[in-house]
Amino acid sequence: MIKIEFLDSTMRDGAQGSGISLSNADRMKLCRLLDEMGLDFIEAGNPVSNPKEAEFFAQRPGESLRRARLTAFGSTCRKGVPAGEDAGLAALLAADTPAVVLFGKAWLSQVKDVLQTTPEENLRMVRESAALCAAAGKLVIFDAEHFYDGFSQEKTYALEVLAAAREGGAQRLVLCDTRGGTLPHQVGETTAAAVQAGFAGLGVHCHDDTGCAVANTLEAVRAGARHVQGTLLGVGERCGNANLLAVIADLQLKMGYSCVSPETLARLTHYAASAAEICNTSVWGGMPYVGRGAFAHKAGMHIDGVAKSPAAFEHVPPESVGNRRDFLLSEAAGRTALAQRLKAWYPDIRRDSPENIRLVETLKQREQEGYQFEGAEATFALLVKKCFGEYEPFFKLDYYKVISEPPQPSTDISATAAVKVDVNGAKQVTAYEGKGPVNALDGALRKALEVFYPTLRSVHLIDYKVRVLESGPATASRVRVVIESTDGQSVWATAGVSTDIIDASLMALTDAVEYKLICAKEER
Amino acid sequence: MIKIEFLDSTMRDGAQGSGISLSNADRMKLCRLLDEMGLDFIEAGNPVSNPKEAEFFAQRPGESLRRARLTAFGSTCRKGVPAGEDAGLAALLAADTPAVVLFGKAWLSQVKDVLQTTPEENLRMVRESAALCAAAGKLVIFDAEHFYDGFSQEKTYALEVLAAAREGGAQRLVLCDTRGGTLPHQVGETTAAAVQAGFAGLGVHCHDDTGCAVANTLEAVRAGARHVQGTLLGVGERCGNANLLAVIADLQLKMGYSCVSPETLARLTHYAASAAEICNTSVWGGMPYVGRGAFAHKAGMHIDGVAKSPAAFEHVPPESVGNRRDFLLSEAAGRTALAQRLKAWYPDIRRDSPENIRLVETLKQREQEGYQFEGAEATFALLVKKCFGEYEPFFKLDYYKVISEPPQPSTDISATAAVKVDVNGAKQVTAYEGKGPVNALDGALRKALEVFYPTLRSVHLIDYKVRVLESGPATASRVRVVIESTDGQSVWATAGVSTDIIDASLMALTDAVEYKLICAKEER
Repeated sequence: MIKIEFLDSTMRDGAQGSGISLSNADRMKLCRLLDEMGLDFIEAGNPVSNPKEAEFFAQRPGESLRRARLTAFGSTCRKGVPAGEDAGLAALLAADTPAVVLFGKAWLSQVKDVLQTTPEENLRMVRESAALCAAAGKLVIFDAEHFYDGFSQEKTYALEVLAAAREGGAQRLVLCDTRGGTLPHQVGETTAAAVQAGFAGLGVHCHDDTGCAVANTLEAVRAGARHVQGTLLGVGERCGNANLLAVIADLQLKMGYSCVSPETLARLTHYAASAAEICNTSVWGGMPYVGRGAFAHKAGMHIDGVAKSPAAFEHVPPESVGNRRDFLLSEAAGRTALAQRLKAWYPDIRRDSPENIRLVETLKQREQEGYQFEGAEATFALLVKKCFGEYEPFFKLDYYKVISEPPQPSTDISATAAVKVDVNGAKQVTAYEGKGPVNALDGALRKALEVFYPTLRSVHLIDYKVRVLESGPATASRVRVVIESTDGQSVWATAGVSTDIIDASLMALTDAVEYKLICAKEER
Repeated sequence: MIKIEFLDSTMRDGAQGSGISLSNADRMKLCRLLDEMGLDFIEAGNPVSNPKEAEFFAQRPGESLRRARLTAFGSTCRKGVPAGEDAGLAALLAADTPAVVLFGKAWLSQVKDVLQTTPEENLRMVRESAALCAAAGKLVIFDAEHFYDGFSQEKTYALEVLAAAREGGAQRLVLCDTRGGTLPHQVGETTAAAVQAGFAGLGVHCHDDTGCAVANTLEAVRAGARHVQGTLLGVGERCGNANLLAVIADLQLKMGYSCVSPETLARLTHYAASAAEICNTSVWGGMPYVGRGAFAHKAGMHIDGVAKSPAAFEHVPPESVGNRRDFLLSEAAGRTALAQRLKAWYPDIRRDSPENIRLVETLKQREQEGYQFEGAEATFALLVKKCFGEYEPFFKLDYYKVISEPPQPSTDISATAAVKVDVNGAKQVTAYEGKGPVNALDGALRKALEVFYPTLRSVHLIDYKVRVLESGPATASRVRVVIESTDGQSVWATAGVSTDIIDASLMALTDAVEYKLICAKEER
């Protein structure tokens, strides 16, 4: 099996993406994640242009890596400057990484217009810079910027740039579609031409500006590239880079290349979620292989098909990438979908069981109110218990009142909540000052309930989202609040819908607490 | 130039996507949008399986279309039932559309496992169903489900299914990658084989489960397909369908095919935004061609490059698809980016102007607090005015108090806000009852300010979003509120950041009001 080598650029090209901002602690977490995945090179930043990234390299993050080679990214020397006297190259070498990515231009018109130098001087810059880094003992990866565009206009020059890098000692020659405008057949043909010209150690670096970054990468590999650059989740400048997770799954599951261990592949969905958390972004539901919806079925017809033969609507088994099959809960899905979904809890459930029918009716009604159960599994579980007659409330909220004022400058305290709860007739009135009304209410409710249920002390919220459901007078619209809670062990999501954000939050908070109490009771 | 024909399936396959739910009013809006775009067929739903969609067809939405042909979607007749006696086909014909999409299976193993019938019976079902619809005067589009998978296992049978549809009178034979697992080179080869086998009127229907839906569609067209199915924004079951907007731009701008009028192409970004609004989803920032970030530059190097030569980092001119170049506002972007961005307002601004330096510092500080100006242009504009010494406040808020309680069952009223504003020394104290604290505060603020500024009566909010910024005790985290306001003419977005959602909302509301007042003043 042919082995494909990967360079992850999440911390370099990925960090150029809109909304991505990585602290050095985030970078360290990503290094560990990528190393655990078994990728080959981790491009951790540009120590030359960015002091924060230089500081990161100074922490010597490469020392704790087991397999991956830490890689610093930087430009070739400047025009008119010998490589040995170039301050940028000196800084790149000072990052003290086993490998470096050197980028240089392979498009003649860009050499003239942007670098504003001669074709020969650009070749010298590439050759000398590669030689300097190679002499310093680095594995040199040369990123041939604009290679595909350059090749389409001036074949000979583009290949001369590769030759200059090779002469300098670069061990990888990476063909970059820097503008992201090249199409799969063009990438395939151009890569094949570079192979034909006798270049070894070819790599590929694609962007998604035509919606073809993954396909372009696959075509380059088919044509002979053996080194692949991209980012986790496809984050990156403009439309992003090639999504390494999709590329890995396509190459390994469908094209017979060797990319990562079977264990890594079987945890791909987990790695996607971890990467999203570190990058403070989310895994888009429709992301190939790893999205929450990648194996979700909604059309009744598809659900019937999948039930009969999973291969009917699933191109790979969800577990091969650590994902799972899901039947979306919606009016359209109907009774079959629901019964399928409930089988894990109630093996005897049938499409036409009275509980199932009652649940379908309840779901329809709640969906009309604005609920979506796709991302609120704990609220769904509680609803199931209610429809199956298995629900007993753990408390009753007699009232709440929240008073909000501008935050106090020193403490950020801005709200006071008072609640009265009733647990089997025992009453508890408590108040709590919070940063905002929801925090105050959350605090007051917990404070009151912890008197009765000490297990709630381990629970805290980790995410809180609000979505406005109707257009019209926006602040009076119905809102859906979704919160994620954890007890340090597991994570669960609950939802509430109301025209009042505090009221919707209270519903989600109440469900979060009740779900925990039910789980604690069932464990005993 | 070769003309490519398009069928939009946003209302059928797209509506199977997670989180997409279309009312019949939404469907009507989409019909108008697609017709305006000049697409050929609008697959508006499945009148057979879904009563809501049948009701939509009963409203005769096709009558108002200028160019596009309304199309209903349904299955071939059931096994063992003559086409003329099949209730489903009768309902499909009753939808009274000029065209129908008939779907049938082209994968032998699925015929056996899922349909549980014989290969011959499946061919009969396809042939007779197509013949019945053709005899009723319909243009028949046959969707050959699982064609690519079927062809890879049983070439001959897959082609027999196409032949049966053609014999029945189908005018389009659409090769479907129903599971979305086929790769570009496979789509290209298989489509070419179908062309070689003598079939005309071939179409393609791709899903994005390998991240290749767009590329697969392009490869099919290169191989000879002339009819393309997909959805706006790529919404759809699992990982979604081929994104028609990217396919259209790729085919027309880069491959020389004729898809839509130049006017439609130049409004592609607008159509994307409209479709997202109707489907209650959003245009992902990195979406090719139409995303907010598709032509956004963040790396300092790229920004310098684009300033020298736009073609350096832009594969097509942004205006060719109605998008615009953007320089992301971030610490990394620095002074050059900001000066570039401000040129429209201040032609004389320079990289090192004192105002520019002050603004960079302010932006850095605000970004550290949690602001993001990428989606809050009006708040950014106000900040610029503040840094350039051009800002005069229109009012001062002396105080606010909000009291929240559970919603009243009959009215949903749950909060009362009191505010005191000061406009050049004139005071106004007002109170407002609202659905939730933000609505109450919004109402009280407006009520007080409209006394002084009647122009505010035209302003209302159209969107309200909340994002939690830090992990930890979630309800006490810093939140960023982004609101969109309109006066019926233009739309503007503002942001506020605080640990208190009410406080953050107030900041965004205040900016929204001030932005309107500044614009009204400048117009005079």
